[in-house]
Amino acid sequence: MTGEPSTDLVTYPFSHTIRVRFAETDAMRIVHHGRYFPYLEEARVEYLRAIDHPYTAWQEAGIESAVLEAFVRYRSPLRFDELVVVHVALRAVRGATFQMDYALSVDGELRSTAVTVHALLGADGRPQRLPAWLVDLNLGG
Amino acid sequence: MTGEPSTDLVTYPFSHTIRVRFAETDAMRIVHHGRYFPYLEEARVEYLRAIDHPYTAWQEAGIESAVLEAFVRYRSPLRFDELVVVHVALRAVRGATFQMDYALSVDGELRSTAVTVHALLGADGRPQRLPAWLVDLNLGG
Amino acid sequence: MTGEPSTDLVTYPFSHTIRVRFAETDAMRIVHHGRYFPYLEEARVEYLRAIDHPYTAWQEAGIESAVLEAFVRYRSPLRFDELVVVHVALRAVRGATFQMDYALSVDGELRSTAVTVHALLGADGRPQRLPAWLVDLNLGG
Amino acid sequence: MTGEPSTDLVTYPFSHTIRVRFAETDAMRIVHHGRYFPYLEEARVEYLRAIDHPYTAWQEAGIESAVLEAFVRYRSPLRFDELVVVHVALRAVRGATFQMDYALSVDGELRSTAVTVHALLGADGRPQRLPAWLVDLNLGG
Repeated sequence: MTGEPSTDLVTYPFSHTIRVRFAETDAMRIVHHGRYFPYLEEARVEYLRAIDHPYTAWQEAGIESAVLEAFVRYRSPLRFDELVVVHVALRAVRGATFQMDYALSVDGELRSTAVTVHALLGADGRPQRLPAWLVDLNLGG
Repeated sequence: MTGEPSTDLVTYPFSHTIRVRFAETDAMRIVHHGRYFPYLEEARVEYLRAIDHPYTAWQEAGIESAVLEAFVRYRSPLRFDELVVVHVALRAVRGATFQMDYALSVDGELRSTAVTVHALLGADGRPQRLPAWLVDLNLGG
Repeated sequence: MTGEPSTDLVTYPFSHTIRVRFAETDAMRIVHHGRYFPYLEEARVEYLRAIDHPYTAWQEAGIESAVLEAFVRYRSPLRFDELVVVHVALRAVRGATFQMDYALSVDGELRSTAVTVHALLGADGRPQRLPAWLVDLNLGG
Repeated sequence: MTGEPSTDLVTYPFSHTIRVRFAETDAMRIVHHGRYFPYLEEARVEYLRAIDHPYTAWQEAGIESAVLEAFVRYRSPLRFDELVVVHVALRAVRGATFQMDYALSVDGELRSTAVTVHALLGADGRPQRLPAWLVDLNLGG
């Protein structure tokens, strides 16, 4: 992964809001640190839908997105019933992999930043070239 | 499902011990009620392994076990780091379905009882006849 | 628990829609049976918010809702990215416990029914009398 | 976090074995990337128990371990029923925080490496000085 995600919420082109479930809290009365990854994934899926490349279309084309790296920096905790805004950006494309950056906020207050790095796999389980629209998206297209 | 599971631990032919993970607790400082189902599943998988019909062999034969019903009666809570003994029994075979009963205890104290009802599905997603060994097991064979 | 939940979606006074996360699927390519319980809980929380008795207000009053029983009848599976409508009803009040019924549908097609039975616990962990509004709600008030 | 964890399994002083649950797989038929964090946590808890500083003793002393950062590099996937060996090391102590490194292997084959960074919080939610035994452990004591 490349550097740290931006802590400036306005630099993210997309956001998606998720309400914290009680089932996602732990005995410290905060969201368990492992529960952030489904939030990132949900926001990523909604981002792809918003730019007209829904993940279900990838699946129909026999392509899956494999996670190569995942990172979260927990700045302050999330709690039951909070409305978490997950900000998403395509940060970088490098060869056959791409990096997504995230910032999680509640009421405009930054709570966490995160990174996921992905490759695309074909039906044979082998890495795929990234589609042109994804490369273009990274160029600001 | 048929009646309530036995609360008498000695009536169960098999048991499997699971230590509660911190990630399985919730903000009430107890194991979240939805987290019991992976415990039942893990104990079921170990039971099948113990009687020489491991679930991975079913999968290799193209058979999956579909859950039709699941029930838990929560008697007293489970907490972080406790060693939970999951007692398992094949309770009933009815046509193409079978019922498993469970009792969860800690230090010999009953904490929960549970039931799952299953059907077997073939690679085509259609219900399969239950194998003879499963029917025999129910007859005490 | 009392009988089976209604399979008639119009008999439920409230519904809440949840999109299936990829993280909630399992290797059978369907939503894992244990993942339904957070859906029921999320719908229950939204129902309480809708009738102006939000769960966070219960918590501030030192009251927690303990789950005594949970049951799901899985009729047909849920899949990634489906929009699941969780229909909710207060089915019964019996002494210090109450029962919620649920029906899960996708595009109007019934996929599952479910039941949860609850008690209210005070800050001392002891059962509480049910509040009048909850008893009244059961009477159709 | 400081650099990448060692990929040399023998450099880790402790290991703990976990069998993959079916509930931890996803529709790609591998363990979901978010499900690794409870594995790391379980191994961390067992490591602390093995060195006679069990996490439950921390809790009784009013101390909780807050996760500040978490990172996983997914090298090759984990599958249902595999026995995953989670190798654990205390990598660094810096002021009031400490870093744990992990390597996950199956049958001696490296599958993932991971890092978590922690602080200790007192009952008042404020950072605590690290205990002497933890600092000593980092010095190879």
